[in-house]
Amino acid sequence: MRDETVHQPHQRLADHLSEDLQGVNALIRARMASKHAPRIPEISAHLIEAGGKRLRPMLTLAGARLMGYDGDHHLNLAAAVEFIHTATLLHDDVVDGSEKRRGRPTANLLWDNKSSVLVGDFLFARSFQLMTETGEIETLRILSDASATISEGEVLQLSAATDLGTDEDIYLQIVRGKTAALFAAACEVGGVIAGADDSEVAALHNYGDAMGIAFQIADDLLDYWGHAIGKNTGDDFRDRKLTLPVIKAIARADAEERAFWTRTIGQGQQEEGDLEHALGLMEKHGTLEETRDIALDWSARAKATLANLPDDPIRDMLSDIADYVVARLN
Amino acid sequence: MRDETVHQPHQRLADHLSEDLQGVNALIRARMASKHAPRIPEISAHLIEAGGKRLRPMLTLAGARLMGYDGDHHLNLAAAVEFIHTATLLHDDVVDGSEKRRGRPTANLLWDNKSSVLVGDFLFARSFQLMTETGEIETLRILSDASATISEGEVLQLSAATDLGTDEDIYLQIVRGKTAALFAAACEVGGVIAGADDSEVAALHNYGDAMGIAFQIADDLLDYWGHAIGKNTGDDFRDRKLTLPVIKAIARADAEERAFWTRTIGQGQQEEGDLEHALGLMEKHGTLEETRDIALDWSARAKATLANLPDDPIRDMLSDIADYVVARLN
Repeated sequence: MRDETVHQPHQRLADHLSEDLQGVNALIRARMASKHAPRIPEISAHLIEAGGKRLRPMLTLAGARLMGYDGDHHLNLAAAVEFIHTATLLHDDVVDGSEKRRGRPTANLLWDNKSSVLVGDFLFARSFQLMTETGEIETLRILSDASATISEGEVLQLSAATDLGTDEDIYLQIVRGKTAALFAAACEVGGVIAGADDSEVAALHNYGDAMGIAFQIADDLLDYWGHAIGKNTGDDFRDRKLTLPVIKAIARADAEERAFWTRTIGQGQQEEGDLEHALGLMEKHGTLEETRDIALDWSARAKATLANLPDDPIRDMLSDIADYVVARLN
Repeated sequence: MRDETVHQPHQRLADHLSEDLQGVNALIRARMASKHAPRIPEISAHLIEAGGKRLRPMLTLAGARLMGYDGDHHLNLAAAVEFIHTATLLHDDVVDGSEKRRGRPTANLLWDNKSSVLVGDFLFARSFQLMTETGEIETLRILSDASATISEGEVLQLSAATDLGTDEDIYLQIVRGKTAALFAAACEVGGVIAGADDSEVAALHNYGDAMGIAFQIADDLLDYWGHAIGKNTGDDFRDRKLTLPVIKAIARADAEERAFWTRTIGQGQQEEGDLEHALGLMEKHGTLEETRDIALDWSARAKATLANLPDDPIRDMLSDIADYVVARLN
C-alpha cells in the first residue's frame, strides 16, 4: 500500500491538527527509545521519519477531536496506531523480501531480517504500553482485535497468493485485514476515547473500513492502470499477486485465457509481452473499469457513514480524503 | 532455553493444578483458530502441542491460586502468557535460523519464515485480546512491559553477539529480557488478578525474575558443562554466543588467550580442538564453578522471596521448582 494516493485533503487535515500532530511526533520519538538496545530507535527512526504521512494516527486524532475530546490520551492512541503500522511494515518487508520502502532502502536490507522482526515486535509491544496508559481498556480491545485481523489477512494473502482459486470474497478479506482493519480501528479508538456513543463509534469504524478498502482497491488497480498517470506498473503481475482486476478476468477466462493465467500467475513462467497481454485481457473483460467502480462505491460508502457524525470542518476533510483516495482513478 | 531442566516438581504442580491446566489447554485450542486463515492453527498447533511443559502459564495459575483467586480470568492470562511465549519461539527460530525445536522440525523449516513471522504476530495479538477480556488493565500493562523487555533483550543479544566487549551487565540484561521477563510477568499477573497487595505482587514478580535468571544461566552453563550429564555441548561456542562462563574467561584472558577468543568467537574461525581448549581456559580460570555459584545464588534468591507469600502447598512447589532448575549443576 502506498500513501502517495492521499495528498491535499490529508495535508489540510494535518494543518488543522498540527498541534496534536506535533504532540504525537514527540511521543513517537520518546517511545522509540530503548535503554538497552540502541539499534531499536535507529531502525524505528529509519522508517518512521522517512516521510510517511501519518494518515492512520491522524485518523485517530480526527476521530477524537471531531467527537469533542479535549484530553491528551488521543496522542497515546495515535502513537500506538503508528507503531502498529510501522511494526507491520517492518514485518511485511521481511515477508516480501522488499528492498525499497518510501523511496529508501528497507530496514531488512540496511540491517537484516532478524533486526526487522525483533524491532517490529518491540514496536508492537510499545503500542500496547502506550494504550494501557490511557486506562481505557476498550481501546486495547479494538486495537488488539485489529492486530489479529491484520495478521490473519497477511497469512491469508500468503496462502492465497498465486492460487487461481482466490475469489473476490477472499480478496475482500485480505484487503480488510491488511489495510482496512487498522484504518477502522484508528478512527474508532478516537471516538471511544472521546466518549462517543455506540452509533457514533460504529460510524467512525465504518468510515475507516470503507475508506481503507477504497484505498487498497485503488492502489491495486493503479498497479495495472498507473501508466495513464505515469506510474510504474506491473509489480503485482510480476510478483504473481492476485488482485481484483485479475481475479475478475480469471473468473471470465475461456480455456486459452485460463492457460495464460495458469502459466503466468499460477506457475510464474512469465515472458516478454505477458504483462501487455494480461492488460489486454482485463480490458477485453472490462475488469479495470469494474474494479474502479467498486473502489468508487466504497469511497461513497465511507462518505455516507459520515452523515451520522457532527457537522464540523474535520468531518468535511474526512469526506474529502475518501474522495481523494480514489480521485486518481478518474 | 530448554524446558527439560524442569521435571519433577513441575509435574507435581501440574497435577495440583490439573483442572486449571485443562481449562487453559481448551482455551488455547479455541483461540488458535482463525476463521479465514487455516494455516494459523496448523502452525500454532505444531508448536503448542509439541509437548512444551506449559511452565509459564502454570506460573500464572499458581500465582493466582496461591493468592486465593477463585474466578476464571486466570485461564485467560495463562493462555495469553503461553501465546506470547509461542510467538517469541516462532520469531526466535526465524532469527536464529533454527531447524529443531522440542525435538521436531521448526515451523520456519516445515512452512517458511514468512508464515512464522506472521503467525507469531497473530498469537501476540491474540494474547492481548485474551487479556482485554479479563477487564484488568493492570495485567495488560505488565504483559506489554514484559513483551517490550523481551524484544529489547533479543535485539541486545543480536548486537552483543560475537562482540568480545560484552560484559556481565549486558549478559544479565539479555537474560532478564529473553527469559526472566516473561517468568516474572507470568507470576505477577496471577497475583494481580487475585487482588494480591503490592508487596505480594512484588514478591511474585521477584520470584519469577530470579527463577528465570537461574534457569537461563543454568541452561547456558550446561551448554559447556553438559558432558558431565551426557548432554551434547558446545552449540553456543559454535554459534559464537557469549554466555557467562565465556565472558568471565575473556575478562581474565592474557594476551594469548585473548587472541584465541578473538579468533574463535570474534572472527568465528574455529578449528578441531578449539571447544576443548575453550573448556580448558574456563576450567583454568574457574569460570564454570563461578557461573554455577551465581545460578545457585539466583535460585536461593527466588526461594527467599517466597517467604513473603502465603504458606501453601503451591508455595512449596514453587520453591522446589527454583531448586530444580539448578539441580543438575550439582
